[in-house]
Amino acid sequence: MAAKLKSAVLGATGYAGFELTRILLRHPALQKPLLMKRETGSSGQDLAEAFPALSGNGGYPLEPFSIEKLKQSGVDLLFLATPHDLSRSLVPEIVRSGIRVIDLSGAWRLRTESHRAVYGFEDYDSKVAHEVMDQAVYGLPELHDADIAGAPIIANPGCYATSVILALAPLVRADLVDRSRGIISDSKSGVSGAGKDATPRTHFVSVADNLSAYGVFKHRHLGEMLEQLGLAPEELIFTPHLLPIPRGILSTIYVHLSHTMTAAEIESCYRKFFANRRWVRVFSPPRLPEIQYSLHSNFCDIGFCLADDGRRLVIVSCIDNLLKGAAGQAVQNMNVMYGWNEAEGLQ
Amino acid sequence: MAAKLKSAVLGATGYAGFELTRILLRHPALQKPLLMKRETGSSGQDLAEAFPALSGNGGYPLEPFSIEKLKQSGVDLLFLATPHDLSRSLVPEIVRSGIRVIDLSGAWRLRTESHRAVYGFEDYDSKVAHEVMDQAVYGLPELHDADIAGAPIIANPGCYATSVILALAPLVRADLVDRSRGIISDSKSGVSGAGKDATPRTHFVSVADNLSAYGVFKHRHLGEMLEQLGLAPEELIFTPHLLPIPRGILSTIYVHLSHTMTAAEIESCYRKFFANRRWVRVFSPPRLPEIQYSLHSNFCDIGFCLADDGRRLVIVSCIDNLLKGAAGQAVQNMNVMYGWNEAEGLQ
Amino acid sequence: MAAKLKSAVLGATGYAGFELTRILLRHPALQKPLLMKRETGSSGQDLAEAFPALSGNGGYPLEPFSIEKLKQSGVDLLFLATPHDLSRSLVPEIVRSGIRVIDLSGAWRLRTESHRAVYGFEDYDSKVAHEVMDQAVYGLPELHDADIAGAPIIANPGCYATSVILALAPLVRADLVDRSRGIISDSKSGVSGAGKDATPRTHFVSVADNLSAYGVFKHRHLGEMLEQLGLAPEELIFTPHLLPIPRGILSTIYVHLSHTMTAAEIESCYRKFFANRRWVRVFSPPRLPEIQYSLHSNFCDIGFCLADDGRRLVIVSCIDNLLKGAAGQAVQNMNVMYGWNEAEGLQ
Amino acid sequence: MAAKLKSAVLGATGYAGFELTRILLRHPALQKPLLMKRETGSSGQDLAEAFPALSGNGGYPLEPFSIEKLKQSGVDLLFLATPHDLSRSLVPEIVRSGIRVIDLSGAWRLRTESHRAVYGFEDYDSKVAHEVMDQAVYGLPELHDADIAGAPIIANPGCYATSVILALAPLVRADLVDRSRGIISDSKSGVSGAGKDATPRTHFVSVADNLSAYGVFKHRHLGEMLEQLGLAPEELIFTPHLLPIPRGILSTIYVHLSHTMTAAEIESCYRKFFANRRWVRVFSPPRLPEIQYSLHSNFCDIGFCLADDGRRLVIVSCIDNLLKGAAGQAVQNMNVMYGWNEAEGLQ
Repeated sequence: MAAKLKSAVLGATGYAGFELTRILLRHPALQKPLLMKRETGSSGQDLAEAFPALSGNGGYPLEPFSIEKLKQSGVDLLFLATPHDLSRSLVPEIVRSGIRVIDLSGAWRLRTESHRAVYGFEDYDSKVAHEVMDQAVYGLPELHDADIAGAPIIANPGCYATSVILALAPLVRADLVDRSRGIISDSKSGVSGAGKDATPRTHFVSVADNLSAYGVFKHRHLGEMLEQLGLAPEELIFTPHLLPIPRGILSTIYVHLSHTMTAAEIESCYRKFFANRRWVRVFSPPRLPEIQYSLHSNFCDIGFCLADDGRRLVIVSCIDNLLKGAAGQAVQNMNVMYGWNEAEGLQ
Repeated sequence: MAAKLKSAVLGATGYAGFELTRILLRHPALQKPLLMKRETGSSGQDLAEAFPALSGNGGYPLEPFSIEKLKQSGVDLLFLATPHDLSRSLVPEIVRSGIRVIDLSGAWRLRTESHRAVYGFEDYDSKVAHEVMDQAVYGLPELHDADIAGAPIIANPGCYATSVILALAPLVRADLVDRSRGIISDSKSGVSGAGKDATPRTHFVSVADNLSAYGVFKHRHLGEMLEQLGLAPEELIFTPHLLPIPRGILSTIYVHLSHTMTAAEIESCYRKFFANRRWVRVFSPPRLPEIQYSLHSNFCDIGFCLADDGRRLVIVSCIDNLLKGAAGQAVQNMNVMYGWNEAEGLQ
Repeated sequence: MAAKLKSAVLGATGYAGFELTRILLRHPALQKPLLMKRETGSSGQDLAEAFPALSGNGGYPLEPFSIEKLKQSGVDLLFLATPHDLSRSLVPEIVRSGIRVIDLSGAWRLRTESHRAVYGFEDYDSKVAHEVMDQAVYGLPELHDADIAGAPIIANPGCYATSVILALAPLVRADLVDRSRGIISDSKSGVSGAGKDATPRTHFVSVADNLSAYGVFKHRHLGEMLEQLGLAPEELIFTPHLLPIPRGILSTIYVHLSHTMTAAEIESCYRKFFANRRWVRVFSPPRLPEIQYSLHSNFCDIGFCLADDGRRLVIVSCIDNLLKGAAGQAVQNMNVMYGWNEAEGLQ
Repeated sequence: MAAKLKSAVLGATGYAGFELTRILLRHPALQKPLLMKRETGSSGQDLAEAFPALSGNGGYPLEPFSIEKLKQSGVDLLFLATPHDLSRSLVPEIVRSGIRVIDLSGAWRLRTESHRAVYGFEDYDSKVAHEVMDQAVYGLPELHDADIAGAPIIANPGCYATSVILALAPLVRADLVDRSRGIISDSKSGVSGAGKDATPRTHFVSVADNLSAYGVFKHRHLGEMLEQLGLAPEELIFTPHLLPIPRGILSTIYVHLSHTMTAAEIESCYRKFFANRRWVRVFSPPRLPEIQYSLHSNFCDIGFCLADDGRRLVIVSCIDNLLKGAAGQAVQNMNVMYGWNEAEGLQ
């Protein structure tokens, strides 16, 4: 194998950044990644302080972030597991310096101004932002691997968006869905999806023995789903819920087919679409995915149940929000960018 | 107050039967209830053996069930927290003997033969069964209190059915829903809804850190929803899910309104429908119910979110499946049957 | 019954304060309690905003706290569910004004200076503080009911302390324990014991699927245990652990008996000590308490297992930390203070 | 590398057997393992039916077990993840046939007749059983790696025993513990430790929001601890508890030191004992292990807290009961048996 790639991670102390770091540390095509933090002194000096699960494996020093440091260290690829705003401000200069970026935030996912409004980026129509946006590719390898291979910047998809887009793309692209009837995704996520900040909403007592819906009609991931599936806003309802579990997403998706189909035809549509894709598993009816099945893996599991009328279809899709919904997908994108096996480092 | 009522419970060792017994024990209009079990020797001799939470409050002896014993003890009202088949075989003779019955099972809830088929009752077209069925009233007080008052037998609703029917009845009865677009209830329940039997599906390790859909298009509670709401089978999709919590149900319900409405009009519709009903709470937008809010209470909480188009509506409904979804509702039905305050014993 | 008592609660928006308020609202000897908050504007204007479980039962307005307001409203008894420091600063003036106080904080529990040091009260040797301390009674009714009856101020015990003291007092007071061998309490608590503040430690993802020990040898409740049991510091090790559940405490306590005993003798010792005490349940071997049994009740459950040698004894004690460990015990203290049935309002 | 080893697993459908199979499948020194089941037709035909997490990775056929089949397939090493009794009856013939065995059950762990009595093996004093027992080595590599290397049969330790023995061995072997004062291990385990059988005790509703002690003074793992640590029965109390989590063990262990020590001396004792041991992590005070830190890893984490008197010591030890407590340790034993890196396949 050729010389190993030099990668860096900014934001390793968050949930997704930590999962990412663990994968990069054992990825056979990489040198030991450079771990960076935003400010001197914050979050301790070593990643094992934030995540004692790393204890005893040797040091994981966190170095203050600077683009100078990236260059000096010969970094080829930078992973950003940072807030949207920070990604928005850092990426232009990084990309100009020739370092490729995989950004786990929502900073560069959306092309439609109205969808992007939900993020409130102050710069959203600046010339610089437009230039970056023109080079960014939405990093869902099952849809865009050709573009990902050559992209200078990858906008890694949202966790909910991944679970919904993969479940719908095969049917929508084949024009099998009656959009006029409306599509619904009732999605449920574990708490790590809400991030590591301690808030009243993430307090154990608020979450345990509970379930709640939130962000109805206005969650930030809705725009990604619409853009990637080519849907109009009124054609998709997305309702996220907060589950009393640490991780995992299950989306229950309701569509009306545009004509009567058999379960075998639907299964065949999925299997053809995902032929040779390592990280999507299509379940044969009547088996449906459960969150546990894909936990701690990079799989997106998809199953379905068709009504007797051959028109009403319930699709169930599961991912681990921190892996296929974030860190695992980022590594999968890296594998595609550098022409490696899509599964490298992820098994 | 007049002489206190004599009640009996068959099936107090199940989850719903136990909750019911706890309420009956403190209900001010009742004598100490007679607790009965099906077979001599089974389930121990005292309810506190099955539920040590009752320890130290004095004895709760379980006596072998017989209709003779009911008569000798002067029982006025029998609660059945028993399997469907047993209710089906016991109720005809009990009702003939003049004892009123509140049956928590699904034995007498369904009038439509095709809906009832899912239970596979062997007797379902027998003359005796028809006679009982003619006297049975579906025990949802918010819809049927006039009929409940005089009924010899109450078919206590299913837990999922309660959460869905109460959330939809105000809109459906006012003809505000475009049924041709289809209604969807994506419902999630805690594990006590699956009963006390130890099965691979109720094993802690199977449920914890998980979420799963089941019974898509064919759950037994679907028939109740259709009958009570006057819907055709193709007009409602109901998808239950198993949550990693002991108790509580949240239903997320999707409807298209038949004409454009405001949130205020929808709230008003709900408030009028449930005016003076003690056990339904209507939430004003943007607040939505969560499972914790109604836990350990007899409330059904209902909230909603209306899309900007004034047509697409997401309703969220929560209950405690063992209370408003079973034991609490049974007591509420008793209160209506005997003309007592609907909240008696339930606060 | 005589004229109803007027009570007030400062701190109703915390976990213990909320449980307390719920009990006071249904207590038959009380007027509707006055709910107070520390600062204008904080925590909303109504308790139902902080705890939507209260929705729909009518208003629970929170009024700004002042001693003037207490007097104007004719408050007889004030419950403090406040931080230790605030209790420390407020109580002297309140007590001088003739209003009785039940303080759920740790402000007045400890008589020994060295034990109190852990709280770091700045005023701890002030004359005013000494005067209050002289009037304060440690509010464990099973030990001190005679003193509680007439006390102007009750120091409501800590949750861990309650579970440990009740389990040990019968044996220690009868001099049945070989103190030279050391006593150990390995205690485990649900997260509500850590309070409602959102911290990294109470984040759902930190607690779920986890268990951790903390505060070994130096938890603040250790002093209460030593004082109430009359033990020297080296005679008791107390190790608290954080359980992935919302509420409940289980203490596993290890003692060496000072002479060989039978299980029957030990059970008899417990039963005599707690004869006629409504809120302690002694379990007969081999049955041991579990957290679920006393959840949502004011019981302290105590069971034990004696080794074949008749000397080594393992005691298991369970309480609901928010009830017998806080709010329920506060109400029990009130019942004793006013000569009411110890169980009033708590069933 | 030399020709790859041929392994087989009997009992892959249990929790530990499944974890074991997952590790063996990716172990670089092994051929694909032969997966076997006890009876034709039971547990399905493929492991992915019992554990859908394996779906889509190709087939994992389960073949009926027979010693003939083991020989025909050229199996070098058989893992038994079977009930104790079955291991007891199968192992003699397997060992005679020259196939090495790693037995995850308790069948061959105990040399002391009185300790073994708890298992009730019918054959326990048979000549055949004695012959096997003479060849069996207790498979705790940190204590016995020299013997493990050449052993025909490895008795893989119990999960609780692993967590307790590793935490105590360094101190006990250095004679630093005052045994006359008694040692206590208060241990807490996730539910997978109770096995996959659906019982009232493993029902989700029984475990969630609960904690319970069980098997006080008489758990089967106590004998292993006594034998391996060279303790008399009265010198160790072991109290297991059932935690509301799927996996993980935390043991809180209390000892009196035989003379006054400093924390630095204790840490040094641990570090020397475990020098060069890949799978034990010693934590420096004041940091203590938590269950999450070692979850999904083969680590045993050990930390401690010393009282000011330098004599009373609280040790906290954590493992993943399915890995270091079962499957991971079995693989570690295999690595030692064949002279491979102790960490092979386990990272």
